[in-house]
Amino acid sequence: MSGRCVVGVDVGGTKILAGLVDAAGNIERTLELPTPVTSQTELVEALVEVVEELRTPAVAAAAFAVPARVDPRGGYALGAVNVPIERLSAREELGPRLGIPVAAINDASAAALAEFRLGAGRGTSDLVTLTLGTGVGGGVVIGGRLFEGWAELGHMVIVVDGEPCFGACTGRGHLEAYCSGSAADRVAERELGPGKTAHDLVEQRHPALEPIGHYLGAGIASLVNIFDPEIFVVGGGFGIAAGELLLGPARRTIERDALTPAREYARLTLAELGAEAGMIGAALVAHEAAERH
Amino acid sequence: MSGRCVVGVDVGGTKILAGLVDAAGNIERTLELPTPVTSQTELVEALVEVVEELRTPAVAAAAFAVPARVDPRGGYALGAVNVPIERLSAREELGPRLGIPVAAINDASAAALAEFRLGAGRGTSDLVTLTLGTGVGGGVVIGGRLFEGWAELGHMVIVVDGEPCFGACTGRGHLEAYCSGSAADRVAERELGPGKTAHDLVEQRHPALEPIGHYLGAGIASLVNIFDPEIFVVGGGFGIAAGELLLGPARRTIERDALTPAREYARLTLAELGAEAGMIGAALVAHEAAERH
Repeated sequence: MSGRCVVGVDVGGTKILAGLVDAAGNIERTLELPTPVTSQTELVEALVEVVEELRTPAVAAAAFAVPARVDPRGGYALGAVNVPIERLSAREELGPRLGIPVAAINDASAAALAEFRLGAGRGTSDLVTLTLGTGVGGGVVIGGRLFEGWAELGHMVIVVDGEPCFGACTGRGHLEAYCSGSAADRVAERELGPGKTAHDLVEQRHPALEPIGHYLGAGIASLVNIFDPEIFVVGGGFGIAAGELLLGPARRTIERDALTPAREYARLTLAELGAEAGMIGAALVAHEAAERH
Repeated sequence: MSGRCVVGVDVGGTKILAGLVDAAGNIERTLELPTPVTSQTELVEALVEVVEELRTPAVAAAAFAVPARVDPRGGYALGAVNVPIERLSAREELGPRLGIPVAAINDASAAALAEFRLGAGRGTSDLVTLTLGTGVGGGVVIGGRLFEGWAELGHMVIVVDGEPCFGACTGRGHLEAYCSGSAADRVAERELGPGKTAHDLVEQRHPALEPIGHYLGAGIASLVNIFDPEIFVVGGGFGIAAGELLLGPARRTIERDALTPAREYARLTLAELGAEAGMIGAALVAHEAAERH
């Protein structure tokens, strides 16, 4: 194993989490700072700064996990809702500033890649993840290969003409409108009163989590029927906190709505890498960028 | 172009359609016979017979499009609902009988491959198809590559706890329960009386087709959000007959429920190869099997 290191950066809606990561995936040092929300220029400055701060002579590349669609052809990140990214080419705008190979990846794909290689999906060949955080993200690995550049699994319609989605999304009845942390916050306010959140629902093991798990199960059943994965991983802040309170009811719905034999084949489990999955996935992509270079 | 030919066979729920196809995709001769429904043994006999019947010295391989999941690793077809296939290995059970390379492919994947190479998807690199026939099948090509072995796109949940699905499927609210020919038959009986079918709805340009198109649009929006394809092709007997009566309302729902920029990127269109798409797709797979040999 070489002594080569990389910097993996997870660009979240509220904070940037960056890590100095070695070739075995060990995190040597991390750095966290608030995400600039005013402009792409300011965001780029912060990304350069965080990489320079963690940089050692052993750092051979850097990669950025972003909450945006990443065009697999041009390498552009675009279509972000929660961070000020209009159209960002990591290679063109960050590469020359840093003087090392750089790459960008969708944050949910990064988390899926990390779980596949180093987390809950170790040893499998097909994996689908759903990340239940502020929104619902997703990632897919089939035959050991990550599919990037796909739009969001959280925006599958599970209830035609159902609940309105969040943010700029005009859709109705999307998975995100029922199973995200934001959707759970909406339920908490309705069930427990103003100012209450998903956190309170989980803390009280509130029965209102059961229908959320049921909706999640319908979404997972759809994805099992589409992708037939060996393992299905649920992650994200809300997903991991609620854990079996969601996965229990989800399993009953999957049993009904997923096809056999796919439903017997797919194993449903929680993510193992927690809040660091996106950063670790970015580091894996950075290692690949360094190798290609 | 060599003079090599292949036999492509589409195994449907009611009939087997086989064709002698040259390297350019031209159909030189076709043969149609009823599908044996009593046993896998009888079905295998019919498949051998149909290939032998069309066979010339130029025939280098044969392939079978089957309404079943085809395990991409073992090459087994299994999980069929409408034909008597329990667990069939084309390579082991048909290969030795025919003495030429053989292959199997899911029928909806075969149709997608044919539309991609020779039909509505010519010149594109990403395509998703939905085939609205007795059931709803689907196929996906991403980056020019067909993904086989995935379970059915028709079994996405679009209405949690919705209409029961057909046949052996225990699911509720699947796309197939709203948008298949069988679902349209169910609507026709309700709207027009006993014995009326999807065909009557289409002939009368009946307003009840509009909600079917709306549900179809929600399913397409989900798939656009998942796969971000360049072109989305609707085929199958019911799909092609109803055409714009479904695609019109579907477009309005896609506009709302699909994310931008994927919804602007994806072009929605009807299949071009009609009822022969599955057979042509099987022939394309047979050509590949001949080349590998």
